[in-house]
Amino acid sequence: MKEILLEHGGGGESTGKLINDIFLEAFSNETLNKLEDASPFFADGKMAMTTDSYTVNPVFFSGGNIGKLSICGTCNDLAMMGAKPGYISCGFIIEEGFGIDELKTIVKSMSEELKKNNAVIITGDTKVVPRGNADKIYINTTGVGEIVYDGLSSSGIGEGDMIVVSNSIGEHGAHIFVMREGINIKSDLKSDCRSLWPLVDLLIKAGIRIKAIRDATRGGLSAVLNEWARQSNVCIKLKEELIPVKREVKGICELLGFEPYHLACEGTFVMAVDREDADKAVEAMRSHEYGSNAAVIGTVDSEFISKAVLETGIGTKRILDIPAGVLLPRIC
Amino acid sequence: MKEILLEHGGGGESTGKLINDIFLEAFSNETLNKLEDASPFFADGKMAMTTDSYTVNPVFFSGGNIGKLSICGTCNDLAMMGAKPGYISCGFIIEEGFGIDELKTIVKSMSEELKKNNAVIITGDTKVVPRGNADKIYINTTGVGEIVYDGLSSSGIGEGDMIVVSNSIGEHGAHIFVMREGINIKSDLKSDCRSLWPLVDLLIKAGIRIKAIRDATRGGLSAVLNEWARQSNVCIKLKEELIPVKREVKGICELLGFEPYHLACEGTFVMAVDREDADKAVEAMRSHEYGSNAAVIGTVDSEFISKAVLETGIGTKRILDIPAGVLLPRIC
Repeated sequence: MKEILLEHGGGGESTGKLINDIFLEAFSNETLNKLEDASPFFADGKMAMTTDSYTVNPVFFSGGNIGKLSICGTCNDLAMMGAKPGYISCGFIIEEGFGIDELKTIVKSMSEELKKNNAVIITGDTKVVPRGNADKIYINTTGVGEIVYDGLSSSGIGEGDMIVVSNSIGEHGAHIFVMREGINIKSDLKSDCRSLWPLVDLLIKAGIRIKAIRDATRGGLSAVLNEWARQSNVCIKLKEELIPVKREVKGICELLGFEPYHLACEGTFVMAVDREDADKAVEAMRSHEYGSNAAVIGTVDSEFISKAVLETGIGTKRILDIPAGVLLPRIC
Repeated sequence: MKEILLEHGGGGESTGKLINDIFLEAFSNETLNKLEDASPFFADGKMAMTTDSYTVNPVFFSGGNIGKLSICGTCNDLAMMGAKPGYISCGFIIEEGFGIDELKTIVKSMSEELKKNNAVIITGDTKVVPRGNADKIYINTTGVGEIVYDGLSSSGIGEGDMIVVSNSIGEHGAHIFVMREGINIKSDLKSDCRSLWPLVDLLIKAGIRIKAIRDATRGGLSAVLNEWARQSNVCIKLKEELIPVKREVKGICELLGFEPYHLACEGTFVMAVDREDADKAVEAMRSHEYGSNAAVIGTVDSEFISKAVLETGIGTKRILDIPAGVLLPRIC
C-alpha cells in the first residue's frame, strides 16, 4: 500500500484497513476504537463547539503540516473561548493517489498535537475523491470542550485595558507566502503553528483577568483589533516599536510590500487584559516556550472610537486598516 | 454577486457579506449570529458526536442535494445512536466559480432539514479553493446531541430478535448511479435522502425495545447485517420476498447486475428489535411518511454464525456477502 486508492473511501475492506493501520494506530482511544458512526462523551455545563476545514497549500511546511494545523487551529478556537479542548472529530477528504507515507506523517503530527491539548479524536470520516477533484488532502476538525473561563467578549473591552500579544506575529503567513510563491530567500523562518491551550491554561491559573482573547489567524493582528475596536466602541492604540516581529518577517514584508499586522498567525494570540494584570500576564507567558516573545503592545482609550491606531517610534499616528481582498488563498 | 470568488474565503469583507447574506439568512439563531470562532451550548449527561464530509457527485439529484444530504446524514448518525440531534457545525469547501444561486438552494435545503430534526447550526467555516482544487462544493457537518435512548449495540443482538427495515432499500445508490453514468432510463426513482430522527423518536415513544439500529448507507443493507452478524455472533436470516425494494430499483439492478442489498440508502434504517415488538414497530413506522414501506424482513438464529443469509421464495438459502471494492465513489 503506497498510495490512496478510491476503494480506501468506499466503506468496505480497504477503508477498514486504512482506519486500522493508520488512523487507529495514531489516534487510538477506547471510544474511537469502537468505530461507531457516532461516539458518546460526557458533558456537564457550558460547552463550546468550533469547526474549521483546512485546505492549506503546501500540505507540508516548515514548523508543521496540514495535520498539525488542523488540531492546533481547532483547539485554539476552543481555547480562545476559554474552553479546554476535549473531544475532536476529523473528516478527511483525500485525493486519489495521495501518498500513504505522507498521510502517516500528517496523522502522527495530529496525534502529537492532540496530546499537547489533552484532547482526543472520538469520531472520524474518510472520503477519497478521484484525481483532480481535490488538491492532495483537506481536513475538517470540529472540537467541543468545556468552558472553564467564562465572560470573554469582543464587546467588553474598556478604556484603560491593555493589549498583549503572546508572541511575535505574522510568521505563518510570511512563511506560507514565501513557500508558495517559490521566493528564494535564505531564511530560518517557519510557521508559528502551535497549540495555545497550554498558555491560556497558565494565564487562567495565574489569575489573569482576560477581557477578550483571539488568535490572529486570517487577516492577522489588524483584523482582530479592528473588530474589537468596533464591537467595544473603543480606540485600540498600539505602539509599533513594542509589537514583536521577527527580523525575517520584517524582511519579507519590506521585500513584498506587506504589513506584518495583516499576516496570519497560527499559534499567536492577542488579548485585552485588566491594566494591573498586563505585566503579570507577559511574565507568565514568557515562562513558556510558546510565549517567549510575549509583550504588552498597546492600550485602549477613546481618541478614535472604533479604530485601531498605530503610533510610530517618532510619535506619528496612523490608522491600522483591515486587509482588503485575499492576500493568499489556502493559507489555512 | 453571481459566483463564488476566492475573496469569499479570505476572511475579510467579502466573507462577511457571504456569511450575512447567505448563511445567516438561512441558519439564523442567537448563538450563530454572534459569529464567534467557537459557540457555546449547554450539555448535561451522555452526548453523542459524529462527523461526515459530503462529496456527493452530482451535487443536485432527485430527492435532494449535497446540503440536504449533509444534514440528514449527520443527524441520522446521531439518531442511530439514540441521540436527539442538537448542535451542528458546518464547514464548506467551495470551488472558485461555484454559482451563488446554487449555493443558496443548497443552504435552503439544509435549513429545512435542520427544522425536521429540531437542530441548529451553531458554528461554521468557509474555505474557497482555486478552480480545479475541488469539484464544486464539499460540506462537512459535525453534530452533537443528547443520548436519550441508551443501550444500543451492534454486539447485543440475540437469537429470536427480529430484523426490521424502515422503508424500501437501495434508492439513493441506484439513483446516483443512473444519474452519474448518464443511463437513459425513464424512471420516477429518486434518492431516499431524508431525516430519520422523527421515526426514531416515534419508536422510542411507542416503547419499542430496539437492540441495534443503523442507517444502511455505504455498503447498503448487506454491510450492516454482516457487521451485526459478526459482532453479535449470530446468524441473521432474511426472507428475500419480505425486503421492500421498489420496482425501479429492481429494474436497475437487473439491468446493471447489482444487488439491491449492496446499494446505499440515505434515509432508511435497519434495526434489530425484541420479537414481541416487531409488528408494533412496523405499525408505528407505517403511520409516518418516512416509514411507509416499513417491514419485518428477517429473524436471528444460530444456523450460520457470523453470517447474513438470504432465503429465497422457493426456500433456497444463500450467503449475503459484503460488496468488495468501490461500487461508486462520491456516493455521499
